[in-house]
Amino acid sequence: MNVVLVGALDTKHAEYGFVRDRVAAAGVPCLLVDTSVLGAPGIAADVDRRAVAAAAGADHDALVAAGDRNAAVSAMARGAAEVVRELHRAGRVAAVVVLGGSNAGFVMSEVAPVLPLGVPKVLVSTVVAGDTRPYVGTSDLTMVYPVVDIAGLNSVSTPVLARAADAVVGMVTGPPVPASSDRPAVGATMFGVTTACVQAVGEHLAANGAEVQVFHCTGTGGRTFEALIASGVFAAVADVTTTELADELVGGVCTAGPHRLDAAAAHGVPQVVSVGALDMVNFGPRDTVPAEHAGRLLIAHNPTVTLMRTSAAENAELGRIIARKLARASAFVEVHVPRRGFSQISAPGGPFHDPGADAALIDSLRAALDPRIPLHVHDLAVNDPAFARHVGAAMDRGLSSTKGT
Amino acid sequence: MNVVLVGALDTKHAEYGFVRDRVAAAGVPCLLVDTSVLGAPGIAADVDRRAVAAAAGADHDALVAAGDRNAAVSAMARGAAEVVRELHRAGRVAAVVVLGGSNAGFVMSEVAPVLPLGVPKVLVSTVVAGDTRPYVGTSDLTMVYPVVDIAGLNSVSTPVLARAADAVVGMVTGPPVPASSDRPAVGATMFGVTTACVQAVGEHLAANGAEVQVFHCTGTGGRTFEALIASGVFAAVADVTTTELADELVGGVCTAGPHRLDAAAAHGVPQVVSVGALDMVNFGPRDTVPAEHAGRLLIAHNPTVTLMRTSAAENAELGRIIARKLARASAFVEVHVPRRGFSQISAPGGPFHDPGADAALIDSLRAALDPRIPLHVHDLAVNDPAFARHVGAAMDRGLSSTKGT
Repeated sequence: MNVVLVGALDTKHAEYGFVRDRVAAAGVPCLLVDTSVLGAPGIAADVDRRAVAAAAGADHDALVAAGDRNAAVSAMARGAAEVVRELHRAGRVAAVVVLGGSNAGFVMSEVAPVLPLGVPKVLVSTVVAGDTRPYVGTSDLTMVYPVVDIAGLNSVSTPVLARAADAVVGMVTGPPVPASSDRPAVGATMFGVTTACVQAVGEHLAANGAEVQVFHCTGTGGRTFEALIASGVFAAVADVTTTELADELVGGVCTAGPHRLDAAAAHGVPQVVSVGALDMVNFGPRDTVPAEHAGRLLIAHNPTVTLMRTSAAENAELGRIIARKLARASAFVEVHVPRRGFSQISAPGGPFHDPGADAALIDSLRAALDPRIPLHVHDLAVNDPAFARHVGAAMDRGLSSTKGT
Repeated sequence: MNVVLVGALDTKHAEYGFVRDRVAAAGVPCLLVDTSVLGAPGIAADVDRRAVAAAAGADHDALVAAGDRNAAVSAMARGAAEVVRELHRAGRVAAVVVLGGSNAGFVMSEVAPVLPLGVPKVLVSTVVAGDTRPYVGTSDLTMVYPVVDIAGLNSVSTPVLARAADAVVGMVTGPPVPASSDRPAVGATMFGVTTACVQAVGEHLAANGAEVQVFHCTGTGGRTFEALIASGVFAAVADVTTTELADELVGGVCTAGPHRLDAAAAHGVPQVVSVGALDMVNFGPRDTVPAEHAGRLLIAHNPTVTLMRTSAAENAELGRIIARKLARASAFVEVHVPRRGFSQISAPGGPFHDPGADAALIDSLRAALDPRIPLHVHDLAVNDPAFARHVGAAMDRGLSSTKGT
């Protein structure tokens, strides 16, 4: 197990050498991964820049010859992420450290997502004073502000880098992390308009001894949910509110990206899936809704949120997307659909009530879903207490599906 | 020497207790400082909330009775900063840790500035994903993103808090920080329009064996410069470019706050001071310049920066401000003024050339400056090589002023 130092060993070799030596002096082995493009590396890398470029499917000489700085930096960051992913698979990553300027932030934004929760990820860069969201993503990132630019070892950068190295040593040599409890952890997804369902499901699961964590499906919530599933945090998930798929398909502001609903299938985590809030796409204030949607059913949820009703065609496509994603699952999956309304506002009497659009999603699921996956269509709305009981019972089956295996 | 844990021991006692126990188990003593307002503290504080309120000149019962949440949080944060300041003066602070939500960020923004560079400052809060500038300020802050809100010990927060505790243990038990070199460190202040001077001064100092760090006077630069002076980083400073004082006085965008030009005097650091770029106040794009300045001499530096010529009256006031700040100095001070232009663009022929306005500052300095402080008025412009030689020679005197003492 190594502390993996990823960065530009042409311009930052003194800083990387200093951190490497200090970590190594504490008895922790290090691996240097070189992402430099132009200058000559000032210290020897353990994974050199040709190998890093190759890991991204690129050729380092060609990157230099092309003279496109952005393309080269991007390729080297992707290559570094692939190198770290492989090292982690081989059990060789105790922590990862990136030092430098804005490129360091970019490299970390590519590298951090390939490592699960609990593997220390340390970024030392002046870019951490500012909007850090591009670097943090959904990772348990540690960020150190070096006060001055990382540009040589001086009387400011030296103590900062020394303490960052010491922090990494502390993190990788600390005692094992205790279990927070002996309860299985369960993740659940909610939106304002599915709150009643998710609360009831959560209460049922908590009463049965689970630790329940709820994620708001605003984009960040769904991304975090997926990242924590991939990190192995959850024994099972109640993905009641898959609404972010609609925003991803139609261009809403609450998209969680193309990988929503992928992690549980990919990582063998039991899941109960529903179609909560797939009757809607989220936009900002009314005047930010793209002109192409002017003729659609739009309602102002509040001055900063405008909701658009999904169409039958969109819902049919969403059914196919869900079916395609769940087809990859090896572990327990059940799909539960509340036929009388996917959200509070599409239940009978609500402004988004549209049984035809809902039926398009249900028909599409019936046609496309892997026949091994049970599809339960209930004559209920999502927030009806009976629907939550169905989901809760399915979660009980999911949680017990892995017992004794 | 303790790891000082500062936070709300009513709602976050489980998390603080966990971190305290893990740090203490590594053999590092901890001190708990309670900033809670309403609920009953769940674990015993070493500095209780009455003492924290009192350190801010407040009464905890009165804060509760007033029912003004913001006022109470603000008072407790200020009190915590005073408590930490006193503990640090007494040599009892090895590191400070704050956990929680947005209040934690606010508390850290008050506490971090009272500690010098090199004392670890660790903030664990979801607010570190976003614009971190309010929390970072000019501190060597370490920020940990906990992925989920800090709301109890669960399967996500437990590993995050454990690793944060381990990082602190590593930072406070690491070996001594080596000196980056045996060269004295010198800080210097520049702006685009004083670059030639500061470069020449820097080259002179570097040739004489100093490590030179240059700060751009954009507000953040001046704040960082002052914070590093207070941290004891510099053997002497060449404060050539005091332009941020004009922005503070007139309301420009590059203000470094009211404490610019204070730290060297307060901390006994030798300083050579000039009036670089005090001929100008910085604003954003032309249409953001306050209407009250419509009749003033304004020039577009570029599409995003508009410069306003300082007036004779403003310059006279700036002279008094400089004199007042320098009067507090106990260590070496010399003031050098380039009579033929405080910046590149107020030299003869430049758009801000205005000998009358410049003379107002010089006359004011002559009248107000402590007579013990040498005032050298040179018949030169700031970027004339001869002016840099005068400043360089003064810095040599400043650096040797502390030799053998």
